[in-house]
Amino acid sequence: MAVRAAVAGASGYAGGEILRLLLQHPEAEVGALTGHANAGQALGGLQPQLAPLADRVLQPTSAETLAGHDVVFLALPHGQSGALAEQLGDGPLIIDCGADFRLADAADWERFYGSPHAGTWPYGLPELPGAREALKGSARVAVPGCYPTAVTLALFPAYAAGLTEPEAVIVAASGTSGAGRSLKPHLLGTEVMGAMSPYGVGGTHRHTPEITQNLSAVAGERVTVSFTPTLAPMPRGILATCSARARPGVTAAGLRRAYAEALAGEPFVRLLPEGQWPTTAAVAGSNAVQIQVALDEAAGRVIAISAVDNLTKGTAGGAVQSMNIALGLPEELGLSTIGVAP
Amino acid sequence: MAVRAAVAGASGYAGGEILRLLLQHPEAEVGALTGHANAGQALGGLQPQLAPLADRVLQPTSAETLAGHDVVFLALPHGQSGALAEQLGDGPLIIDCGADFRLADAADWERFYGSPHAGTWPYGLPELPGAREALKGSARVAVPGCYPTAVTLALFPAYAAGLTEPEAVIVAASGTSGAGRSLKPHLLGTEVMGAMSPYGVGGTHRHTPEITQNLSAVAGERVTVSFTPTLAPMPRGILATCSARARPGVTAAGLRRAYAEALAGEPFVRLLPEGQWPTTAAVAGSNAVQIQVALDEAAGRVIAISAVDNLTKGTAGGAVQSMNIALGLPEELGLSTIGVAP
Amino acid sequence: MAVRAAVAGASGYAGGEILRLLLQHPEAEVGALTGHANAGQALGGLQPQLAPLADRVLQPTSAETLAGHDVVFLALPHGQSGALAEQLGDGPLIIDCGADFRLADAADWERFYGSPHAGTWPYGLPELPGAREALKGSARVAVPGCYPTAVTLALFPAYAAGLTEPEAVIVAASGTSGAGRSLKPHLLGTEVMGAMSPYGVGGTHRHTPEITQNLSAVAGERVTVSFTPTLAPMPRGILATCSARARPGVTAAGLRRAYAEALAGEPFVRLLPEGQWPTTAAVAGSNAVQIQVALDEAAGRVIAISAVDNLTKGTAGGAVQSMNIALGLPEELGLSTIGVAP
Amino acid sequence: MAVRAAVAGASGYAGGEILRLLLQHPEAEVGALTGHANAGQALGGLQPQLAPLADRVLQPTSAETLAGHDVVFLALPHGQSGALAEQLGDGPLIIDCGADFRLADAADWERFYGSPHAGTWPYGLPELPGAREALKGSARVAVPGCYPTAVTLALFPAYAAGLTEPEAVIVAASGTSGAGRSLKPHLLGTEVMGAMSPYGVGGTHRHTPEITQNLSAVAGERVTVSFTPTLAPMPRGILATCSARARPGVTAAGLRRAYAEALAGEPFVRLLPEGQWPTTAAVAGSNAVQIQVALDEAAGRVIAISAVDNLTKGTAGGAVQSMNIALGLPEELGLSTIGVAP
Repeated sequence: MAVRAAVAGASGYAGGEILRLLLQHPEAEVGALTGHANAGQALGGLQPQLAPLADRVLQPTSAETLAGHDVVFLALPHGQSGALAEQLGDGPLIIDCGADFRLADAADWERFYGSPHAGTWPYGLPELPGAREALKGSARVAVPGCYPTAVTLALFPAYAAGLTEPEAVIVAASGTSGAGRSLKPHLLGTEVMGAMSPYGVGGTHRHTPEITQNLSAVAGERVTVSFTPTLAPMPRGILATCSARARPGVTAAGLRRAYAEALAGEPFVRLLPEGQWPTTAAVAGSNAVQIQVALDEAAGRVIAISAVDNLTKGTAGGAVQSMNIALGLPEELGLSTIGVAP
Repeated sequence: MAVRAAVAGASGYAGGEILRLLLQHPEAEVGALTGHANAGQALGGLQPQLAPLADRVLQPTSAETLAGHDVVFLALPHGQSGALAEQLGDGPLIIDCGADFRLADAADWERFYGSPHAGTWPYGLPELPGAREALKGSARVAVPGCYPTAVTLALFPAYAAGLTEPEAVIVAASGTSGAGRSLKPHLLGTEVMGAMSPYGVGGTHRHTPEITQNLSAVAGERVTVSFTPTLAPMPRGILATCSARARPGVTAAGLRRAYAEALAGEPFVRLLPEGQWPTTAAVAGSNAVQIQVALDEAAGRVIAISAVDNLTKGTAGGAVQSMNIALGLPEELGLSTIGVAP
Repeated sequence: MAVRAAVAGASGYAGGEILRLLLQHPEAEVGALTGHANAGQALGGLQPQLAPLADRVLQPTSAETLAGHDVVFLALPHGQSGALAEQLGDGPLIIDCGADFRLADAADWERFYGSPHAGTWPYGLPELPGAREALKGSARVAVPGCYPTAVTLALFPAYAAGLTEPEAVIVAASGTSGAGRSLKPHLLGTEVMGAMSPYGVGGTHRHTPEITQNLSAVAGERVTVSFTPTLAPMPRGILATCSARARPGVTAAGLRRAYAEALAGEPFVRLLPEGQWPTTAAVAGSNAVQIQVALDEAAGRVIAISAVDNLTKGTAGGAVQSMNIALGLPEELGLSTIGVAP
Repeated sequence: MAVRAAVAGASGYAGGEILRLLLQHPEAEVGALTGHANAGQALGGLQPQLAPLADRVLQPTSAETLAGHDVVFLALPHGQSGALAEQLGDGPLIIDCGADFRLADAADWERFYGSPHAGTWPYGLPELPGAREALKGSARVAVPGCYPTAVTLALFPAYAAGLTEPEAVIVAASGTSGAGRSLKPHLLGTEVMGAMSPYGVGGTHRHTPEITQNLSAVAGERVTVSFTPTLAPMPRGILATCSARARPGVTAAGLRRAYAEALAGEPFVRLLPEGQWPTTAAVAGSNAVQIQVALDEAAGRVIAISAVDNLTKGTAGGAVQSMNIALGLPEELGLSTIGVAP
């Protein structure tokens, strides 16, 4: 069986990473590649790392060019996925790396994205309780945001076990590819090297409601989330430093046990041995997630830290992992837990 | 008047930065330079950026070599300052960039540093209420840690104005020079480039009690501090992302007003205009501090963020600023708010 | 005496660095600041490192806004300086950081810049034999390109002493600020971090004729130059690795002596002790130049290597140094040989 | 068939990269892992990117621990391979990533390495004329140095076609992993970020005779090599900028044709389309080589530039490629031309 896959938005960072993974996936075959401003250009100059596809030319993004594939990956600005999906119909598995179908609360969607709510699709974070089942056989997948992936995996075991109060404080550092490939002054190399800076402060980042939705679902009650993203001088990777007030009676041993149980059997998530801390370098280019947890007894808080590659597990790897599940393939097929380090 | 200054520990990063600032200080004259393992070597190979001192040779660190100066800067591992200060006597102004004389609580000291408590000296963070007065004319200065400098400046206005609950959650990213110049595997360039990683998690970092002491003093009650430091792939700079639960009735306007008032007239600290966020690049090599604050109403938290250069305002600049105050010189002499960017 | 200075192009990297130096120059006073697309904006958001100028607003670049100053620094795209200078007349010292008045050969100019030749102004590289004299009292200065600064200083002593054949091979690595602040995809931080890449290969870079002109003038014969620039993952700095065939009879000792003599007394250029090699970090933010030279006897070549900060000695520092000379101020005024490192 | 492979020196950067590739090689099985100072430690803390091997413990490096494998990779300091190979006997394929068996000229070896010459083994650069044949069925492989890999691939087509004079000038920039994992002050992250610096200048770098040997073999005459390595602020990658005087009559079209012909059919080496230049980012983590070439008519030189990953194609990937050939496996097995970028 060969799964023929199209990628819409193939000139961006997410699109490039999807292609990188598809090229190494034993059951996938790369079909149509589409772009918007770059339609008509060869991929070799846009994604020079994808040598086997150097001579492939981008087509315009449309239902026509994307039709006739088993899987269609959408790596587009938000607001475009719904109409395309409708035109493509029930045939293909459609995997949306954008935000359009992630949020259940229409008011949240409208407040943060300023456009009409499109609905929800099965959520491509298989590690979240219940999510893996919902993905099996689905014809639609909403891939999580990169920050929600990192944060949810760090904190859900604590909430699932009832160990933490419903208020989480999260500070996450992301590599600059998380900000995409658009030309903005603050993303110039000259500006970002040597610089750490925050953005979307005060609860204004669009991933805040998605994090809230995930943690609240696990906790069984509304979790209040304070989320501050920062931009770090590296191309890839997210380090999410998350904490929440510990419930009375929580012990370090009990906390660790809860994490070990919640993460047991997960092929891509690893609770590190005590004394070892996550580092983004170790997961670069892989679908691996490193997790570590500690109880700060003096501060009365659980500290949970995760490292992911924002482009891989945080976007394209999560998308391929979801594709595998949806199509009934082995979940780990074509994906790796081996980082490209140093 | 020329102030003759000796620097103990001149081959480390803090020592080098003190020398960089002294060379540009109109009233300072660089006297003895001492080292431990590097005694006998010329400075040119150790601190190649200090061209005017290239031929100066390091002497061994001892009371003899340090005697006869108006000011002695100590940039030594902790535990060495007390005995040296005693031997040097009352003559010179002694400015300790180490931790020995920062903590008032002997139990805290012993728990975090594992050695006998030495006492306290006037604290070299002039912006902290009361600190500037205590430094005037003092013969001793305890320079704050780099993280406590960044965090205290970000949060003290909120606590001074009674706007926040006594629980603070802090995640700070530091450039690698903050970890010093000792040869440790995780500090190799190959390891740190492309990597964000935490350390000292769970309240174990030695700067935790110092942050607690500062914030509690301002708040007038014990502040519980959750502090997580992370290492960022840049040589210099600290970005401190701090938050605390807002007290009832706090408004964004009131918060901003409190910060503007608390920081008014401070020569090195700047509350940025609304919409602009601190970045470590903008303060690199300078004594400047950038601060921004926001109220996250949904999360009920005040978010305060600061950027400093860990080596300048976070260590050597704070030391020179304190020297100026202690000696009765203009506080800004030889210091700058102009960062070396991009 | 206060020298009132205007800066045209104040929102770019060169303009920002000129301002950084002027703010620290004891005789300079910052006058009008102009921009093109950014006219009307406050400098605080564009050059956040220049805290003292945060509230200054950019005016449009025109003779009107630039009139009435003692010195006018032009940091503009090429082709604009001539007309502005004519309108400003003989009153002010005009220092052009662009290329317009660097090349004597009209054919070279037209081939590399594609526009009519404007002529030449005294060349702002005082270390070049004869250049310092020509700058004294001049009302016009053409500041050298950043690469020509680094390369000329590395190689002129060998040519001045007749030690090398008239063919030089140069490979230089530049920080990304050398490519300016315009929004180009390959300058995004995500692209440049982790990447070394060449550009302007095969003699096509515009600095090639300027390097050729400088070396040929010193050699007294046409020097053939092979110049390859590369972009390095750092914001600032140039490392120029230059070599030329050694003439018969050249010895390592003779080579070193020639360099020591040629560079003796230069306030900003330092021939490093044997065994120490230049590094861009050591000169960051300073007007210093580090030089080292070696004779490769097996290959029969002289290897000369220099490190400069492309924005400081390579542009703004060279400009201020030239201003000092032109105005009869001490050449080192407001400039430093102390790098901001680590 | 499963190829059981041992890795001696598994805690270093070369050893880690060999393991990363072996884990993704469909015919390889990871056997004994050995170390020296780290023997007894689990790999998880030393190579955190190799999640599947986290619990494997390093054994001491000895013939006993390495015996009983089909392939033994040696990633050891020079001088140790010969004795180990003798003890291991003719059974296993031994692939030496060190320098011991690369140089044919005993005098060169002794001058550059200061120890007795061990001899030569078939050279693991299959793209070099004749090398692929020599590797087939061999029980021994000497893996080339990282710089010689990059430089030889850039220049051999010009020499093979007789287009260039026998004098080459090479300046190469390497990521810091090329300097290994030993704790040296100049390799600290704080020192290398923001810094370009040369080392081994003047023909003293140990890769100089290896480059000379390769180019001379292709040229059929002694090629004089001027080689200057530089350290760049990135963890991986080599950009080699190479040039040689063009022979009379060489044209740009003829040069390009020669390269196209020499590299035709090579699975890992790609001559880029005109106008596109190599970048280390595009080959990171892959066995790909990007090549571009230009004729600088004014300077009379051929400029040939290559980008490789020093750890992959420059070391571990070249080793696995050679293993595949030696064992009669498909040459590309387990290797990729897809870089991990951005």
